[in-house]
Amino acid sequence: MTKILSPEELEAELRAIGAERYHDKHPFHKLLHGGKLNKGQVQAWALNRYCYQSAVPRKDAALMSRCYDRELRQEWAHRITDHDGAPGEEGGIERWLALTTGLGLDEDYVKSMKGALPATRFAVEAYVNFVREKSMVEAVASSLTELFAPKIHEERISGMLEHYDFIDDSVMQYFRRRLTQAPRDAGFALEYVKQHARTPEAQAGVLDALRFKTNVLWVQLDALYLAYYDPGMIPPGAFVPAEQDG
Amino acid sequence: MTKILSPEELEAELRAIGAERYHDKHPFHKLLHGGKLNKGQVQAWALNRYCYQSAVPRKDAALMSRCYDRELRQEWAHRITDHDGAPGEEGGIERWLALTTGLGLDEDYVKSMKGALPATRFAVEAYVNFVREKSMVEAVASSLTELFAPKIHEERISGMLEHYDFIDDSVMQYFRRRLTQAPRDAGFALEYVKQHARTPEAQAGVLDALRFKTNVLWVQLDALYLAYYDPGMIPPGAFVPAEQDG
Repeated sequence: MTKILSPEELEAELRAIGAERYHDKHPFHKLLHGGKLNKGQVQAWALNRYCYQSAVPRKDAALMSRCYDRELRQEWAHRITDHDGAPGEEGGIERWLALTTGLGLDEDYVKSMKGALPATRFAVEAYVNFVREKSMVEAVASSLTELFAPKIHEERISGMLEHYDFIDDSVMQYFRRRLTQAPRDAGFALEYVKQHARTPEAQAGVLDALRFKTNVLWVQLDALYLAYYDPGMIPPGAFVPAEQDG
Repeated sequence: MTKILSPEELEAELRAIGAERYHDKHPFHKLLHGGKLNKGQVQAWALNRYCYQSAVPRKDAALMSRCYDRELRQEWAHRITDHDGAPGEEGGIERWLALTTGLGLDEDYVKSMKGALPATRFAVEAYVNFVREKSMVEAVASSLTELFAPKIHEERISGMLEHYDFIDDSVMQYFRRRLTQAPRDAGFALEYVKQHARTPEAQAGVLDALRFKTNVLWVQLDALYLAYYDPGMIPPGAFVPAEQDG
């Protein structure tokens, strides 16, 4: 790409990447939300996704550790507490653990990440390292999958409540909270990227950063599909669901 | 060192390092608090020290970015907002800028760090890198100069108010606030280190981390002494005070 995009054109390109590559297009997502999985498969999804959730504060701290702009750090700091919580105040990771516990998984086992798929761990740590190493505007851009998150969260809430008798509203609080958190954060990050990516090279970096991040999410569903759905090749050491009733 | 120390012995060794090496022992500190400096020299101190203040949130974010322990991250997060503030809420860096502005320095010049001594910049970034690279318990231990900070802050407040007619109470808020913040943080970090440094090697690392940090602080006063006091060799590009009245 040699031409510079207007901020509006850049936003349109970013949104096009989401339309093509966000993991709501993944077959495993459709199976999950369409009620086509059994409890063991939903457990596998939730315990793998814990790895991602628990890495997000490290990722956001990595961004802040490289950021010389105090206003950007001020704006970014609440992302860490949104996920980590504060002493005596529940955060997103605890809400995620309410989901895994509600699904019958042992909390210490989930937190140990011992049963997670290696592909999940690699993808998640690649995300943390990306933010640690790339330019600030690329690091910010890699968060922009949040632009597309509200739709997937809404689908999750309604689809999973409707289709699975082992899911009730109390374990879906993580997604409800993200319905308000994600758009606020994504709006800020989008404006930042539109303002600060002012050369063709920077804009190409921003678009690649979002593609990279969609890969981080996609890879995780690929790995779940292969291990737990079709053909069901669970790698050595990974979580093995108990015998399923239905 | 081959013998393992009890937690109490480790604390005693840490406190002995402070007694020997903390920068309240530095001649420039004594000059500053004893009213022996002119306004230009106090300006030089304040604008150099800004580099350190403004790096602290990056240092704390670097620690959190490497920390897999959610409880430790929860406990650490407020350090960032203590310094950075939050949108609409003043933090330590702004309180420091109130001091530099009160001393007659241009805020943009201070924030640019262009007039700071190279030795200051190198020392400060060495601190950020130390926390980025060393073990978690060493990273935590490097914050332990806060154990010794309340005394120096009290001396600063009383000494500087008493001796300098260009200093008034309104610009000393940074130090007043740190009188309560530093002991709380230092207490937590000390307990963490005493609990988690359980081998002779880890304990040696912790003691070295605190020595390293005292060096980070000491080097900054050495550089100020040389450049602005005796013999007054200001390096090329560094801040040059205006002619002094007295």
